[in-house]
Amino acid sequence: MFRPEIKVVDCTIRDGGLANDSHFNLETVRAVYEACCSAGIDYVELGYRNSKEMFDPAEFGPWRFCDEEMLRKATDGIDRRDTKISVMQDAHKAVAEDVLPCDESVVDMIRVATYVKDIDKAIRLANSAAEKGYEACINIMAISHESSPSLDEALQQIEEETSVKAVYPVDSFGSMYSEEVHFIIEKFQMYLKGKEVGAHFHNNQQLAFANTIESIIRGANFVDGTLNGLGRAAGNCPLELLLGFLKNPKFNIVPILDVIAKHILPLQEHLDWGFHIPYMLTGILDQHPRTAMKLMASEDRDDFVGFYKSIVEAPE
Amino acid sequence: MFRPEIKVVDCTIRDGGLANDSHFNLETVRAVYEACCSAGIDYVELGYRNSKEMFDPAEFGPWRFCDEEMLRKATDGIDRRDTKISVMQDAHKAVAEDVLPCDESVVDMIRVATYVKDIDKAIRLANSAAEKGYEACINIMAISHESSPSLDEALQQIEEETSVKAVYPVDSFGSMYSEEVHFIIEKFQMYLKGKEVGAHFHNNQQLAFANTIESIIRGANFVDGTLNGLGRAAGNCPLELLLGFLKNPKFNIVPILDVIAKHILPLQEHLDWGFHIPYMLTGILDQHPRTAMKLMASEDRDDFVGFYKSIVEAPE
Repeated sequence: MFRPEIKVVDCTIRDGGLANDSHFNLETVRAVYEACCSAGIDYVELGYRNSKEMFDPAEFGPWRFCDEEMLRKATDGIDRRDTKISVMQDAHKAVAEDVLPCDESVVDMIRVATYVKDIDKAIRLANSAAEKGYEACINIMAISHESSPSLDEALQQIEEETSVKAVYPVDSFGSMYSEEVHFIIEKFQMYLKGKEVGAHFHNNQQLAFANTIESIIRGANFVDGTLNGLGRAAGNCPLELLLGFLKNPKFNIVPILDVIAKHILPLQEHLDWGFHIPYMLTGILDQHPRTAMKLMASEDRDDFVGFYKSIVEAPE
Repeated sequence: MFRPEIKVVDCTIRDGGLANDSHFNLETVRAVYEACCSAGIDYVELGYRNSKEMFDPAEFGPWRFCDEEMLRKATDGIDRRDTKISVMQDAHKAVAEDVLPCDESVVDMIRVATYVKDIDKAIRLANSAAEKGYEACINIMAISHESSPSLDEALQQIEEETSVKAVYPVDSFGSMYSEEVHFIIEKFQMYLKGKEVGAHFHNNQQLAFANTIESIIRGANFVDGTLNGLGRAAGNCPLELLLGFLKNPKFNIVPILDVIAKHILPLQEHLDWGFHIPYMLTGILDQHPRTAMKLMASEDRDDFVGFYKSIVEAPE
């Protein structure tokens, strides 16, 4: 038995872009898009639509900006079936002027990522996108560091001031356990009467998939995953695990398995995402993974004890 | 806040022995034992006490048999603090005669692993161990393949005919989701009034830790883990994640981090345990991982689509 309201968002290229400064080659992006369309994934997020004033195009790849021309190159000639295209804007690093009217764009949905402190910026971007004809969502990052009353106020504002489709808690540090997931999903539902609640988890404690399941059980209907869990540090909820769990007969796991084997696993030669003890330790301590990423890039990557002591004694 | 009744069992050497035919060198076993003692782990399971009639000692390492002499070599001179030693007997591959009276042994606990069909053998071994002075447990393997009324009858028998300390459901195929975990823990509790319920999960779907948490939430008090999740195929619930979750102040994660870095990670040169797509697929399909293990040892290990089709169309 399945719940038809559940929408799956693949954000391999968008969130995975935090692991490689959005430097995916066009062939990979086309393969991911095509596989998701064939597999019946509801949305594919092909990157950020962030400002070139905030990110240097000489340093970051094209999927940090998602110019319409690049998106057309990534999608032209592929049978999209029922799959919609999403891009993300960071509330504090994007401008509404970079977004065309929806009927001139290949994009269907714009998701705005924000911290609670930037909620007014996020609401402005989301409303601007909605006025231009897009579906809009707001993703609240670092949710484990946000507490009442600021979070409650932000949710109340979103409810009253926007018509977004879904609002996500984002477990940026991979620190949450199931009871906290239940609490946060219920808090979101309490404020967001006419909007869906989403679920976006990181895998520092091997709980990204489990927490997504727990969110679904509590009623979340917009769920994020990435192919093979690709993402910064410990990565994300693996999309292929989600498809195994969800029973909607429209999903087909075969194209997902195929694109992972052919296009995602080869990325492991240069990108070392996934569960590792240092990422676990920042997750347990509810810290940003940047100290663990620095350790993992050093020769001391297996000095777990030294690292643990350093982040316990002097949390950054 | 913590629940003092929760007992953690490290079964790195025992269950990890299924990945290398129990061929750990003595130095590794001593390091694991010492780290668990220092970390405050309640029990360390150092291997199987299985029959040399059933397993060839020329093929299997010493931790498949756990002769008292080997156990003394593994533990002599180490401050055991409050940590107890466990060994496991397979109901259909072990004999009671291999077990000394408890006061002549270094072992404190004997756990009997069984399928439902062998429950009478398991009860006989467990009762024999209890009579000799050991704590005893029964672990029911392949729990996802067992159903009413046989499982119910087995639980009723254990309740009436034994004085075991704990009874575990074992998710041998890593196929279970949280709602199934809740169901099975509650079923066990319904029958086992004076006994603890355990939790032993495999990581085919990255749910071993999550399902252990769900078991704890429902009242399971005996929980199994292995260092870095070491185990056959996708492996087990990582002990270090458990220590991060459990709040009992007696636990110290530092010796665990240290032994993983120095003794467990180096095993990865020869042993390839952990989450991989083929193990995920057998988990999703609730099948034994042996087909996936065969694939992973072959040159076709990345042919996920071919493998998936083969196990869907002709489940072994």
